[in-house]
Amino acid sequence: MKLNIAVLPGDGIGPEVTAQAVKVLKAIAINFDHVFTFSNALVGASAIEKFNDPLPEATIETCKNADAILFGAIGKTSYDLDPYAKIRPEQGLLRLRKTLDLHTNIRPVIAYDDLLIKSSLKKTQIKGTNILIYRELTSGIYFGDKYLSEDNNTASDVCKYTREEIERVAHSAFKAAQSRKRKLTLVDKANVLESSRLWRRVVQELATQYSNVEVNYTYIDNAAMELIINPKQFDVILTENMFGDILSEEASVIVGSIGLLASASIGDNHVMFEPIHGAYTKATNKGIANPIASILSAAMLLEHFGLDDEASLVRDAVEKSLTLHITTPDLNNKYDNITTTKVGDFIEDFINNPDETNLN
Amino acid sequence: MKLNIAVLPGDGIGPEVTAQAVKVLKAIAINFDHVFTFSNALVGASAIEKFNDPLPEATIETCKNADAILFGAIGKTSYDLDPYAKIRPEQGLLRLRKTLDLHTNIRPVIAYDDLLIKSSLKKTQIKGTNILIYRELTSGIYFGDKYLSEDNNTASDVCKYTREEIERVAHSAFKAAQSRKRKLTLVDKANVLESSRLWRRVVQELATQYSNVEVNYTYIDNAAMELIINPKQFDVILTENMFGDILSEEASVIVGSIGLLASASIGDNHVMFEPIHGAYTKATNKGIANPIASILSAAMLLEHFGLDDEASLVRDAVEKSLTLHITTPDLNNKYDNITTTKVGDFIEDFINNPDETNLN
Ligand SMILES: CC(C)[C@H](C(=O)O)[C@@H](O)C(=O)O
Ligand SMILES: CC(C)[C@H](C(=O)O)[C@@H](O)C(=O)O
Repeated sequence: MKLNIAVLPGDGIGPEVTAQAVKVLKAIAINFDHVFTFSNALVGASAIEKFNDPLPEATIETCKNADAILFGAIGKTSYDLDPYAKIRPEQGLLRLRKTLDLHTNIRPVIAYDDLLIKSSLKKTQIKGTNILIYRELTSGIYFGDKYLSEDNNTASDVCKYTREEIERVAHSAFKAAQSRKRKLTLVDKANVLESSRLWRRVVQELATQYSNVEVNYTYIDNAAMELIINPKQFDVILTENMFGDILSEEASVIVGSIGLLASASIGDNHVMFEPIHGAYTKATNKGIANPIASILSAAMLLEHFGLDDEASLVRDAVEKSLTLHITTPDLNNKYDNITTTKVGDFIEDFINNPDETNLN
Repeated sequence: MKLNIAVLPGDGIGPEVTAQAVKVLKAIAINFDHVFTFSNALVGASAIEKFNDPLPEATIETCKNADAILFGAIGKTSYDLDPYAKIRPEQGLLRLRKTLDLHTNIRPVIAYDDLLIKSSLKKTQIKGTNILIYRELTSGIYFGDKYLSEDNNTASDVCKYTREEIERVAHSAFKAAQSRKRKLTLVDKANVLESSRLWRRVVQELATQYSNVEVNYTYIDNAAMELIINPKQFDVILTENMFGDILSEEASVIVGSIGLLASASIGDNHVMFEPIHGAYTKATNKGIANPIASILSAAMLLEHFGLDDEASLVRDAVEKSLTLHITTPDLNNKYDNITTTKVGDFIEDFINNPDETNLN
């Protein structure tokens, strides 16, 4: 298969982790006789520094011409601390999601047996957790009208949803549930928000088309609690943009490190794959950034194109690295010198030689 | 002291738990020579059933004439499942908060040594946790303009804040931090929301007036993760309405049961005290509802009026009940027949006879 992949490493630890994912994709291409080409482009703070624009036109072009996008991370502490900044790294990511209409964001939350001990939660509670979060990604309060008064004393954001926006991500979530444990939980705040009540109505209606799926409804405050108390009750979680942001990052505590969570952002014409973690500026170039979220995002990319054996091999390699403690410090208390690159190298070696890597 | 207390038991388990808190307040009055009078009023689904209004005028009057309000819980499953309902129990609570201008909601999150084992989190991680959440309670997306299109296909909610709304709750939070560990964390989503950037600006400005308080800024998604990974890093958390709702319910996993979390809602002219849990319809009249959140809310009421010895005695009684496993099933795996009323009775007895209750 030929795939043209746009690579947007972004800021902070983005470039380091993305480099490992690219390395892994290259190894897959060689071993399975695919032709993957990679085109790099700037986004976020690094694009602001060069072009005063977090999403330059050239980057959009590169993405539009690609079959898939591999995204790193964006963000920088100086912007976080400056609430007056008009141009911000995050705008690069948000505008990209909007421009390419990447409406459906899928975030798997899987508790690996080898990592149960690393979680903040008790082992028995999390063992076997396997959740797919479907987060709406191009609407809601992220993209509604924003307002700041002239005198800087009043500010507002609008959370707006239309039936169509809800339906498309909901259909995908229902279909995913059908191929899994047939449970879908809608998370909203329908006791307070009009937009949430629209979500609940639309999902109630769609539910009649998916009669073999058990549908539950819960409020975001309750979901934030239940996700920790009893994560195994969830199969597919469907939710709006902001609640999905919160729940998915919270869910990282089940898995043991936010450095493990991958995601796919699916639109009708474009697809993007990115770790859910941020740019983690402090850790830049220290070799401590966990590349697994980025590598697993690459595995989701492969799966998206039907390359299931290839994706499985990447996942096997990742699991082997966890079993053998070839992991960055966020997960490792056995060895203390396993860098970002070493994890990538190990996974690359495993792909090249699945049967021998055990002996290293 | 004379106190006129409005009692709004509400729906579901509200009446059962509130009855225990009233019992405790009566015991305090007798033992400390106070005169507490109680006036009951309807709110929520029970008010809708009787008056077709979740907050009847008579209830507002009762509250306005009282020195303090003790609130139970509102909500009912039939409304949760009906996103078309125009009259909803929650409106009773929200309109009450707004009408009485109860802008500052304080939710303590304390890990009791006797309950460390009950938490979903590992003991070492939570031991010693003591967080005060300051949640803005009368603005934000809860109270902004709501819209539903004629054809029911588009819905929106506005999250709006003014500088004044932020300042008043922020001042209280800063002052609380000064009397504690001098750390304040603002939780927002300033990388995306205009309203969050206003929060960040205002808090940055106020911080200069509280130079002995260390101020940190974090995004809600990150906070939802950090609250679980390392709750001990937090002292005072300050946040807007919706994020406060989510974080405080999530925080219940640290404490071991949502049935333990109390809150105070403070306005310039009125004060209200309520458990953070909901009406939990399923558990109604089964004797399994934990009354401690309501009883600790009564303790916060006593403290608010400077009755510190009285409040301490209530807290001691609660802790004793935890130590002796005189607790409802959510916390108990030692005895299986301790009902809501029994917990209330034990705490009442302790107040009447602090030195003897040990022997019971
Ligand atoms: C960086 C930020 C704008 C982004 C978001 O809030 O969507 C991130 O947190 C994510 O989850 O992808
Ligand atoms: C019942 C509901 C409207 C309320 C809220 O969201 O504020 C509750 O969850 C709370 O936290 O007090």
